[in-house]
Amino acid sequence: MKEEQERARRPGGRSARVRAAVHQAVMSLVAERGYGAFTIGEVAARAGVADTSIYRRWGNLEALTADVAMAWLTAESPIPDTGSLRDDLRSYATQVAGDIVGPEGLAILRLAVSLSASGEEGEQARADFLLERQRQLDAMLDRARDRGEPAPHSMDVVDHILAPMYVRVLFGLTDLGADYVDGLVDHLLAGLPREP
Amino acid sequence: MKEEQERARRPGGRSARVRAAVHQAVMSLVAERGYGAFTIGEVAARAGVADTSIYRRWGNLEALTADVAMAWLTAESPIPDTGSLRDDLRSYATQVAGDIVGPEGLAILRLAVSLSASGEEGEQARADFLLERQRQLDAMLDRARDRGEPAPHSMDVVDHILAPMYVRVLFGLTDLGADYVDGLVDHLLAGLPREP
Repeated sequence: MKEEQERARRPGGRSARVRAAVHQAVMSLVAERGYGAFTIGEVAARAGVADTSIYRRWGNLEALTADVAMAWLTAESPIPDTGSLRDDLRSYATQVAGDIVGPEGLAILRLAVSLSASGEEGEQARADFLLERQRQLDAMLDRARDRGEPAPHSMDVVDHILAPMYVRVLFGLTDLGADYVDGLVDHLLAGLPREP
Repeated sequence: MKEEQERARRPGGRSARVRAAVHQAVMSLVAERGYGAFTIGEVAARAGVADTSIYRRWGNLEALTADVAMAWLTAESPIPDTGSLRDDLRSYATQVAGDIVGPEGLAILRLAVSLSASGEEGEQARADFLLERQRQLDAMLDRARDRGEPAPHSMDVVDHILAPMYVRVLFGLTDLGADYVDGLVDHLLAGLPREP
């Protein structure tokens, strides 16, 4: 909720409530019908707002669905701080695995990868998502470096922890068990130079 | 062409020509409009066949698009045999990178990940795709083991070579340069036990 308010153009009050209602309407339509299979009019009706409020704020359906997908993907899976990079990564990866194997997570993940098909807003939102994930990860990785632990680049975390889980879920392999998830972390850390 | 004939229900002749024309029509519609944004009637018109021929053979649009996506993804990127696993993997990864960064490749990749949204045929096709990729990879990996080289599991190749490239392309990072691709291979092989 705090993040939603910060992201709204006019923080707090009616603007934040409209945003929350519209996001919720998009989420439920995505879960029911799949991404893209609904109109702005249907979102507005479900959210109890005027079509024009949505057009004024988001411009079009692509920009709106992009905003919803990115808010979900970056609001979920908060960054842990356990004091050890291996434990941070295991905890983070376990959270992400849990988020994406559910039906809502899969719908959002599909929505995210389909965004760029629908113009510049989609491409921008998709790029913003990766940047936001990197920013979150860099906070974790910087803390590890400050403690003197060797740490990978944040894109290595994307490539070798997030990407395998995303692709498995997108291709229908939804059994992301603890051994598998921990194995991804161990594999990534095994490729790093020893302690400095 | 040879593979298409083998896959057709009645090999060669009219059946194979229909399949090729229908596949080509779907590919061009996917590239023009994005996956799912067309009907069986439009595919039939473009391929110059009757709607009923498509319904009889594929049943529905989901099964048809699944067939097209899987045929493209598994026909491209043939498996190399250089005599060294590292070179085989680099060659394979370089081919896959080249295939998926183009507009047709991206459209097909999006199509593949969206398939399961549309029922059982989609899920089955998606599972078949992963199985076919694994089967192709296992041939390469088995040759390496026969030569006495340590080799990863085929799902490790999916997780640490295919998945990072797929996710980068799906999220709009299409700069899969040689250093990056070779780095994925080296990272995967570095995690293996030394020569037996």
